[in-house]
Amino acid sequence: MIIDRLQEEAMRKSPICIGLDTSYDYLTKALQEKSCRLSEKIFEFNRAIIDRTDDLAACYKLQIAYYEAMGMEGLRAYRDTLSYLRDKGILSIGDVKRGDILATQAEYAKAHLTGEFEADFVTLNAYMGQDAVSPFYPYIEHKEKGVFVLLHTSNSSAGDLQELSSEGKEVYLHMGDLLEKWGKNYIGESGFSGVGAVAGLTYPKEFEKLSELYPKMFFLIPGYGAQGGRGEDLQPVFRNRINGVVNSSRGIIAAHKGKTEGMDFADYAREAVQNMKEDLIGWR
Amino acid sequence: MIIDRLQEEAMRKSPICIGLDTSYDYLTKALQEKSCRLSEKIFEFNRAIIDRTDDLAACYKLQIAYYEAMGMEGLRAYRDTLSYLRDKGILSIGDVKRGDILATQAEYAKAHLTGEFEADFVTLNAYMGQDAVSPFYPYIEHKEKGVFVLLHTSNSSAGDLQELSSEGKEVYLHMGDLLEKWGKNYIGESGFSGVGAVAGLTYPKEFEKLSELYPKMFFLIPGYGAQGGRGEDLQPVFRNRINGVVNSSRGIIAAHKGKTEGMDFADYAREAVQNMKEDLIGWR
Repeated sequence: MIIDRLQEEAMRKSPICIGLDTSYDYLTKALQEKSCRLSEKIFEFNRAIIDRTDDLAACYKLQIAYYEAMGMEGLRAYRDTLSYLRDKGILSIGDVKRGDILATQAEYAKAHLTGEFEADFVTLNAYMGQDAVSPFYPYIEHKEKGVFVLLHTSNSSAGDLQELSSEGKEVYLHMGDLLEKWGKNYIGESGFSGVGAVAGLTYPKEFEKLSELYPKMFFLIPGYGAQGGRGEDLQPVFRNRINGVVNSSRGIIAAHKGKTEGMDFADYAREAVQNMKEDLIGWR
Repeated sequence: MIIDRLQEEAMRKSPICIGLDTSYDYLTKALQEKSCRLSEKIFEFNRAIIDRTDDLAACYKLQIAYYEAMGMEGLRAYRDTLSYLRDKGILSIGDVKRGDILATQAEYAKAHLTGEFEADFVTLNAYMGQDAVSPFYPYIEHKEKGVFVLLHTSNSSAGDLQELSSEGKEVYLHMGDLLEKWGKNYIGESGFSGVGAVAGLTYPKEFEKLSELYPKMFFLIPGYGAQGGRGEDLQPVFRNRINGVVNSSRGIIAAHKGKTEGMDFADYAREAVQNMKEDLIGWR
C-alpha cells in the first residue's frame, strides 16, 4: 500500500513534507518578469524547488487554494507540478480538503486521484461523516492511493467545533474513533492505515494523545515553522517511532525572501529543509 | 446586501435553486457527439437549461466537483457558466464547500468570489472554526457577496459528527450558534444575514428547529427530489415565510433522461422546475 511507501520515505529521507503553496509573491523578480505564461512561471518555480530538495523530503503537498486563486493558469501549474512529481516517482499530496455527499465525493475522488489532477494522497474534511471518506475506499484498496482526514487542525480557531465535549471526550476524539474504524480494513505492511489523519503540531499535547490512542494512524502534521510548531514538540512521539510527515510551506519555499546573499532561491529552500531535518530528527 | 436580493428573487420567482451538477452522462447524444471542445459541450448544455428556466428560479448552484472531475476542460465550463450567469444578472452559488486555515481560506475567497471563477455566493465547511469563515467577511460587507456554511447536511451519514451531543445539544446546534454569532454584523434589509447556512431537507424536523432558533439565517436547502426531500416537508416553515432556497439538481437537469416524447432536454428541465414550484409553494 502507498501508505507503506510514504512511511518508508519518511524513515529513509526525513519525515518532511514540503508544501508547495506557491503564491505569486514568492517568485523571484526574474521569474515574475520572464516572458512566458503564468502557469509556466509557477511550474518552473516549483520544479526548481523539487529538483533541489527531493533527496531530503518524504513527499510534496500542493495546497490547491493558491492555484485556484490564479484561475485556469494556476490550475495548469497545479496539474503540471503533480505530473512532474509523478514522472519522477515522488509522492504527492493534493491538499484539497474536500468533503461532500456520496455522489459528489465520488466525483472529487475521480478529480483528484485520477486524470489531470492525480495525486497519490488527498486531504478530506469529514464534517459530513463517512460519506466524505467511503468513496475513496476503492482507491485505497485497489489503486495505491491514500487519504488524510482532518482530525485536530493547526489553526487558532480549531477548537470552536473540534474541542466541544461530548460524552466525556472532545469532538475530535470522536472523529478519531470514526477514522480508526473506517481505516481498519486498509492497514498496510507498515502497520499504518491508508486512512490517515491531519493533526496540527501547534497543539503538541493533542498530537501526543492522538499518537497514543491511534497507533495505526499515520499523520499529516501541519503547523511547523511559520505557524509556531517546533521540532522539539515532536520528540515525545518521534522518540518511539515516526508516525507522520511534518509539513512546512512558507518556511521553505519563501526562505529566499528578503535574503541578499546571492544564493539561488532553490538553494535557500534546500538550506531550510536541511535545517528543518536537523530540528526534527537531529537528536535521534 | 446580496442576501436581500436572493430573498427577493426567492419571493418573486420561486424559492428554487437549480443545481448545475453537470455530469457528462446528462448530455444528449447530439451534444456528446458535436465536434467541439468538451468545455463547450458542457457550457452549451448549461446555457440551454439556464435560458429555459431563469424566469422560474431564484438562483443557480454549480457543484464544482463535477467540473473538477473533467479536468481543465471541466473548469473552463465552470468558469464560462458562471460568467454567463453574471452577464445575465442571475445569482450564482459556487458550491465548493472549502474550509481551511486563515491564509489558505483567504486564497479560496479570492479564487471563488473574484476573477475567473467568481460567484455571488460560495458554500463553506467550518470544521476548522471561524478561520474558515472570517476571510469572507470583507466580501460580505463591501463586495456584495455571501456564504452558506454547512450546518446540518442532507446525506445519510450527516449524524456521524453533527449529531453528537455536547452540553445538552447536538454539535450542529453549536455550529448554528457560532454561525449566528459570526453573521450578526452582516444583517441585510430583509432581516437575513450574509452568513447563511446549509440545512438538508432530508431532515425536515431539524430544518424546522433551525428555522425557529435562527430567524436571521437564510438557508441553502439541498436534498429535494432524488435525495428524498418533498415540498410538504417545507410547509411548516414556509407557511410563515420563505427563509431559504431549495436546491434540485438531477431532478431538473437530468429530467430528459429516458424520456422519448421528443421534447428538447431544456423543455424537460423547465417542466421539472414548474412541477417543483407547484410542489414547493403551490399551496400558498
